[in-house]
Amino acid sequence: MAGILTVTFSAGAYGDWQIQRTTSVTGESLPTARRLSISEAAAVNNGYTWQLRGVVSNPRYSTAVELKQLAAVSPPLGRPEAKVAALIPIKKSDVWWTMAQDERRAIFEESSQHIRRSMNHLPAVARRLHHSRDLGEPFDFLTWFEYAPQYADSFETLVSELRTTEEWKYVEREVDVRLVRGY
Amino acid sequence: MAGILTVTFSAGAYGDWQIQRTTSVTGESLPTARRLSISEAAAVNNGYTWQLRGVVSNPRYSTAVELKQLAAVSPPLGRPEAKVAALIPIKKSDVWWTMAQDERRAIFEESSQHIRRSMNHLPAVARRLHHSRDLGEPFDFLTWFEYAPQYADSFETLVSELRTTEEWKYVEREVDVRLVRGY
Repeated sequence: MAGILTVTFSAGAYGDWQIQRTTSVTGESLPTARRLSISEAAAVNNGYTWQLRGVVSNPRYSTAVELKQLAAVSPPLGRPEAKVAALIPIKKSDVWWTMAQDERRAIFEESSQHIRRSMNHLPAVARRLHHSRDLGEPFDFLTWFEYAPQYADSFETLVSELRTTEEWKYVEREVDVRLVRGY
Repeated sequence: MAGILTVTFSAGAYGDWQIQRTTSVTGESLPTARRLSISEAAAVNNGYTWQLRGVVSNPRYSTAVELKQLAAVSPPLGRPEAKVAALIPIKKSDVWWTMAQDERRAIFEESSQHIRRSMNHLPAVARRLHHSRDLGEPFDFLTWFEYAPQYADSFETLVSELRTTEEWKYVEREVDVRLVRGY
C-alpha cells in the first residue's frame, strides 16, 4: 500500500452489508440505519443516515519487524467465509494527540500490546484501518474487521481485552457497528 | 496544539505575501503567481493560480525530550521582524511511506538529524508544518518558515544541509517558494 486510498462508509437504506446493531461504547452513538455501503473513493452518496470517511495510509506505530510479521499472516478483505463484520470508529483525546511519538508508541504497544493482541487473531480476522483525523472527521480512526461467524466469540475477546488497556484510557468516543454481509 | 487546524495557501493576484521566486528543487514546479494568501480554514478562493492545503496535526517523529526542547525555543508566527518567508511543499516517495515507523524515524533523525539541525536555527526561524498526504493533495507536507531578512544566509545553510541528507533521497518532488511580507 503505497499511495493513499480514500474510503467512504455510508449508512442508510442501501449497501452490501446489513447493520445488525449500533452500540455506543464511549460517548455519543451514531444514528441507527439499515444498511452500509463501502466506497473506495471520496464519494458523497445522497440520502445516507451517516457517512464517515478515512484514508488507508502509512503505518504509524509498527516497527519493521512487526510489519513483516503482520504481512505474513494478514488475510485480504472479501473472503467468502467472512460473512460478519465490525466497523469501530474511535476518537482519542487531546491528551493523546499532544503526546510525542515515543510516548504514544509506548502506551500503544509496550503497555497495551495492541499489535501483539491483534496478531493472536490472525489470519482469522481481516482488518483495515482508515485514518480520519487529518480530514477533520468526527472520529480519528475507522477500523473495519471481517471474519467468519464461528469466530465471533474470539473476536469479542479481542475487543473486550483492548478496551481494558492503558491505550483505551485515551479513547473519548467509540461506537461499535456490527454487520452481516448480504440481504 | 490539540485539535487539527486546516490551512489553505492560495497563490494568485491577492494576499498578504508577495512571491519573489518559485523554484523547482526536484520534479515539477508550481506555476508562478504574484501573491500568496494564507487562510486558517479549508477555504476555496476563486481565481487562484494554485492552491495547497494542509493540516497542523500531531507530532509524527519527535520524542518527548525533543518536543520539550523545541517548545522552549520555538517562536510564534507573525513576529514584526519576520518579513521574509519560505513555503516549501514536499512529496516523498512510495518507498518512504511503505517503511515502518522505526525505519523512517532512524533516517529522519538518527541519520539525517532533521530536528537537531532545525533546532540550531531557533528561535531565529519560525516554522509551521502542515500535513497534506491524507488529504489526497499533490504534496505530503507544506512547511512554512518566517525569519528576519538579516537571517537569510543562515536559512540558506539550513535548507542546503537538509537537501544533502539521507532523508532527502526519498524526496521526489520539492518546490521552494520565497516571499516578502506586504505590498
